[in-house]
Amino acid sequence: MTPPRRRPLDGIRVLDATQAVAGPVCAGHLAALGAEVIKIERPGDGDFARRSPPYGGAGGVAMVRQQPDDISTPVLKRNRDKLSLALDMGRPEGLEVLQRLVSTADVFLENLRPGVTEKLHIGYESLKAHKPDLIYCSISGFGRSGPYKDWAAFDTMIQAMSGLMAMTGYEDGPPTRAGILVADNFAPLFAGIAVLAALRQRDATGEGQFIEVSLFDCLVSLVWDEPIELLATQGKPARMGNRLSRSAPWNTYPATDGDVMICAPQQDHWKRLTQLMGRPDLLEDPRFTTLELRIKNVVPLDEAVAAWTRQRPRATIVDACQAAHIACGPVNDLEDLVNDPQVQARGLLQPLLHPAHGPVPGAGAPAYPVRFSGFPAGFSRAAPAVGQDTDAVLARAGFSLEQIANLRTLGIV
Amino acid sequence: MTPPRRRPLDGIRVLDATQAVAGPVCAGHLAALGAEVIKIERPGDGDFARRSPPYGGAGGVAMVRQQPDDISTPVLKRNRDKLSLALDMGRPEGLEVLQRLVSTADVFLENLRPGVTEKLHIGYESLKAHKPDLIYCSISGFGRSGPYKDWAAFDTMIQAMSGLMAMTGYEDGPPTRAGILVADNFAPLFAGIAVLAALRQRDATGEGQFIEVSLFDCLVSLVWDEPIELLATQGKPARMGNRLSRSAPWNTYPATDGDVMICAPQQDHWKRLTQLMGRPDLLEDPRFTTLELRIKNVVPLDEAVAAWTRQRPRATIVDACQAAHIACGPVNDLEDLVNDPQVQARGLLQPLLHPAHGPVPGAGAPAYPVRFSGFPAGFSRAAPAVGQDTDAVLARAGFSLEQIANLRTLGIV
Repeated sequence: MTPPRRRPLDGIRVLDATQAVAGPVCAGHLAALGAEVIKIERPGDGDFARRSPPYGGAGGVAMVRQQPDDISTPVLKRNRDKLSLALDMGRPEGLEVLQRLVSTADVFLENLRPGVTEKLHIGYESLKAHKPDLIYCSISGFGRSGPYKDWAAFDTMIQAMSGLMAMTGYEDGPPTRAGILVADNFAPLFAGIAVLAALRQRDATGEGQFIEVSLFDCLVSLVWDEPIELLATQGKPARMGNRLSRSAPWNTYPATDGDVMICAPQQDHWKRLTQLMGRPDLLEDPRFTTLELRIKNVVPLDEAVAAWTRQRPRATIVDACQAAHIACGPVNDLEDLVNDPQVQARGLLQPLLHPAHGPVPGAGAPAYPVRFSGFPAGFSRAAPAVGQDTDAVLARAGFSLEQIANLRTLGIV
Repeated sequence: MTPPRRRPLDGIRVLDATQAVAGPVCAGHLAALGAEVIKIERPGDGDFARRSPPYGGAGGVAMVRQQPDDISTPVLKRNRDKLSLALDMGRPEGLEVLQRLVSTADVFLENLRPGVTEKLHIGYESLKAHKPDLIYCSISGFGRSGPYKDWAAFDTMIQAMSGLMAMTGYEDGPPTRAGILVADNFAPLFAGIAVLAALRQRDATGEGQFIEVSLFDCLVSLVWDEPIELLATQGKPARMGNRLSRSAPWNTYPATDGDVMICAPQQDHWKRLTQLMGRPDLLEDPRFTTLELRIKNVVPLDEAVAAWTRQRPRATIVDACQAAHIACGPVNDLEDLVNDPQVQARGLLQPLLHPAHGPVPGAGAPAYPVRFSGFPAGFSRAAPAVGQDTDAVLARAGFSLEQIANLRTLGIV
């Protein structure tokens, strides 16, 4: 038997005191690379995201719990390969347990409201006393400064304030959210990079540090890749449907059996597209000779492309474009996605596991998407039930059986 | 004078042979942490994204070049703190130069079409011969396997195929793209985590590795945080406007002077919101007593909330909600964003720098969004013009002035 290969974060212990989405997702990125992640949850209810439907269990997935031990499916997806420690950090005995665990940890993650960590004595300065080289990562809506620093925040509110909603949708329609939790997913990726960078620096210098990640800062930094000032000051529409302000043709076009998305930003893409369409005249058309002109005259440009796509099924258009090295794909609905051959071939979905019942019928969980030749990244264990690993975690940290029983009697764990 | 503080990627050399968005953005994340990033571009035109409007220079920003040395503003944003080496990798002399540089590098990034790297003899196996512990990161649309592996791809096509567009927009409207390049920005964050993890493993084991990042795989993994199967099979609408399938109230609501976004997923959020609204009756209303019921009866729920917001300006609603710890913020247009006090207070925008002319009038570039107590992360130098650092990079790699002049005469650099 080959011994299991070393993973980059083997031996790294992460205390994950976060709830909801961004924090647990960040801890998940670290777990996928081998870190031991201890999810700290309130005894009883646990992470409040556990009250987020739909729920999954032995009987499948539904918007209400079918069995008492059904678990929120987003929680089952985001907390794979973690241990759950039920701990009331708000009481002195719980704080002592936390401090003892911190002394054995490398990384501490929190996404509590600003001020709450200080009140609980679990801010960076407090915990650093128990682990001088601790890496402490705080994920919050707006960070530790500025007029909104104390504001409560959730993903879509950040989308609204960052300008993303202003840029999503149609010119004659309302600002629109991106259909997934983009703010809640961008921030933990930045935080994952930050924690890995800080680990590298700790190994080089012996020093830990405080890392501050804000959902708003992260999303604004990405929104500003777009020409915001130009859109804000020159009367250009912020929302352009599926068009792009800096490229054309770049849109969804109707086929006989649905829509296709074509992205043809370069001059040679456009040339090859006119060839495919049997429209060499368009290449010479003075409205379309340069990218800037194609952007300016995008309405007749899109009409010309649509006149070609409208008579063909999606697969024919996609195959023809791809054979000519033009980026084109179907606009999939969710059923298309579930059945997509690339999703199948790449193993992008795994069974969604319940900690007591194994695979949840009819439900999938995303595989970790990055492949490394040097080690297996990703998840193999189900997300835990609340407090499922309390005894093991405490025993490993040196608590006796009697101490653990005592803490349980007190309702601390 | 205090010496400049060490950054985590000081001493790490990255060869960035990528173009467009995802690759350069990944290299940018590494540059922000201290890596020396050498951007390898075709002599002359360089990265094809350089032909992407709008352009910025001494005269400001416009959709067409106002001066011959105006540079694409997305390129100016994405390539800060990098060096530019103009190199024709497709000719034998250029390949030799690349191999010599690889022998001095830690990381190689590419986002060429599958097969092209092998044709150019710059695939992982080829370059590894020149640097056995090289970390080689490939970013592509669909990865190295599956039926779409050879497909050309751009951001919005990935949005279309991943199901994100199917979930973005209104139930009675078409699938809609998220208004920023989310696929192009998620993948390089995963890649940044991957490169840092591989560096950690290299330091522990002495071995490099091949990393494969696919835009499609990354975006699908995030889309699948949503209850896809439920939406696909139980007749639920995939697109819900600004509502969320698993929470309510969670929507945009009209104010007297624009819209606000309110996210109140928990029972106590709802309780406090009914108090603010002066509607204790709603808390007892059998349609709204649980989260599941609020989701089911979201239309009358949203009507009740809107009846309250409609009579108040945005600031009044936001302040009242935030005072009650309910997540609520304005739906900003782009002008709101440019003038946002949090953006100002946090320094989220920096001057957009042109390599020859300094700040581009009227334009901003996003600051690196993460703050570290241990070192200054982010950017200080303008993105380079094509080939601006060719001589310096080659001289440092041991090429003589005569050799460099020769390569230039041949058009290799």
